[in-house]
Amino acid sequence: MSTISKSQSSRFGGNVLALSGGVGGAKLCRGLAEVLLPEQLTIVANTGDDFDYWDLRICPDLDSVMYALADLNDEGRGWGLRDETWLTLSSMRKLGGDDWFQIGDRDLATHLLRTQCLKAGQSLSAATKKMTTGLGIKHNLLPMSEQTVATKVLTDQGYLDFQHYFVREQCRPEVLGLHFDGVESAALNPLVSNILGDDSLAAIVICPSNPFVSIDPILNLPNCRALLKDAAAPVIAVSPIIAGRAVKGPAAKMMQELNMPATALAVATYYGDLLDGFVLDEADAHYLDDIKALGIKACVVPTLMTDMKSKVELADAVLAFATNSAISA
Amino acid sequence: MSTISKSQSSRFGGNVLALSGGVGGAKLCRGLAEVLLPEQLTIVANTGDDFDYWDLRICPDLDSVMYALADLNDEGRGWGLRDETWLTLSSMRKLGGDDWFQIGDRDLATHLLRTQCLKAGQSLSAATKKMTTGLGIKHNLLPMSEQTVATKVLTDQGYLDFQHYFVREQCRPEVLGLHFDGVESAALNPLVSNILGDDSLAAIVICPSNPFVSIDPILNLPNCRALLKDAAAPVIAVSPIIAGRAVKGPAAKMMQELNMPATALAVATYYGDLLDGFVLDEADAHYLDDIKALGIKACVVPTLMTDMKSKVELADAVLAFATNSAISA
Repeated sequence: MSTISKSQSSRFGGNVLALSGGVGGAKLCRGLAEVLLPEQLTIVANTGDDFDYWDLRICPDLDSVMYALADLNDEGRGWGLRDETWLTLSSMRKLGGDDWFQIGDRDLATHLLRTQCLKAGQSLSAATKKMTTGLGIKHNLLPMSEQTVATKVLTDQGYLDFQHYFVREQCRPEVLGLHFDGVESAALNPLVSNILGDDSLAAIVICPSNPFVSIDPILNLPNCRALLKDAAAPVIAVSPIIAGRAVKGPAAKMMQELNMPATALAVATYYGDLLDGFVLDEADAHYLDDIKALGIKACVVPTLMTDMKSKVELADAVLAFATNSAISA
Repeated sequence: MSTISKSQSSRFGGNVLALSGGVGGAKLCRGLAEVLLPEQLTIVANTGDDFDYWDLRICPDLDSVMYALADLNDEGRGWGLRDETWLTLSSMRKLGGDDWFQIGDRDLATHLLRTQCLKAGQSLSAATKKMTTGLGIKHNLLPMSEQTVATKVLTDQGYLDFQHYFVREQCRPEVLGLHFDGVESAALNPLVSNILGDDSLAAIVICPSNPFVSIDPILNLPNCRALLKDAAAPVIAVSPIIAGRAVKGPAAKMMQELNMPATALAVATYYGDLLDGFVLDEADAHYLDDIKALGIKACVVPTLMTDMKSKVELADAVLAFATNSAISA
């Protein structure tokens, strides 16, 4: 699975919980999986983007992380699987079925099997475990909740389901707000609550994902913020914004529409006192003092992940920063 | 859609109802569709083979006929679609899902869309109509019933679901009997009942399909035999057995296991007084007098369908024979 030789013992002491969305988060998760032993790393993926299509349960962020961990993801396209084909989709189009969401032939197996597992009464965690095991993934990947939370985007056209906004409308509508349908009655995955209360937890990493649609659904689960703040481990976020732009996705556009500057500083400000530390790119080094002024430790490193080397280097830097943050906390 | 130029008016006067299973039946249906106008031909497909797999509703015979009518079927393999690929299946295998039944990537769209339609409360007829329309099929294709009938094969290993016997066990177990689960409480498709009672019906064709597992589920629907016998149109069966062998599938092996000779004569005898006429291959011409002795008219023609020409010739021969049978009835 790994492209870089990995020592049997980790360079980092203690366990890590990573909160992740899709693309950018999945990249850092892949780096973390390279430098941490399987028993050290648990990844919690956002499931607010999940939706039903072709009567199948689609979990885009869970799948992006799963495919990245299995080294099966398409880095160029940024989502889905490498060497993908699209024959079911084109046949569906001919038959008169829905075709606005692109599901590849390889990817489709994931949604079919997940839907089967859920219908058979298994939890989303159990369905995920079955598939990660099938793909030979050793690290622990969990959905943020076993219950359904559905991100709704309030736009100038009214509320849109997240995937309708993101895929069908290509993020064109102006975002006025976000709502996480069902979040009040959903529970943080109990496996995650357990990890947050465990003394062996040494770092909580908020991956460079969209704060509003990838991380907020997790943070808004009942008691989640409190558990994160009460955890002994420092909470470290990595900026998804580099030099005023999102590497991928609508985060920067969304920030402007939500009346905040599209900057790393604004991300740190948005997370606020949830954070012990913030990792920002060299291009944003000029925000260092402003972030420290928020009472948040800051660390400037290259954050753009273009290959395995840069993923591992960022993972190492984040974990080293977490260690320092913990010592000086 | 057609490979042979078709005149705008049919050579045959009146309407035709064809009862069909998969491969052999689908070939004759393709021939009938070539020589009959859309409004003249209704095909009733067996749904006793239907089953759930990957939580999708699979209707093998309906699909074989649909693909044949759309000229999309794989003639070499004998089932499924041409230019098929199998990436979802191989991904499903890697993920640890079921892989005993082969679903191709193109074919999968059919099962996904059908399942969606059924879940949305549509009838199987409506789901079929949506898809045949999408594929540009003009002739009428109907499932034998809107209700579920499940063929169970009593074997030396006990009862097996049909697809388990047929695909998973490759027809190896000895067949001791057949049971059509749910047939007593199912109803013949009302659209078929209407056609059977209509004076414009000029021929009922039992396609060269397996009598026990493809045609019997239809015939065993409540009142179906009576409606067929009472219909003004002659009932003509085409032998699925040529020179003691089935062109495809387990019909001959099944006949021997059910203690009847694997012959065209035995097929005619099995259908018995349901038939007005029986079409058998030149290789079986020596049974002509025996069949007539059963009180069934007989017609000897080449019945092996290897290309469009032979499908059309057999369709023409069956329809001409039906006309003669009706005149002399």
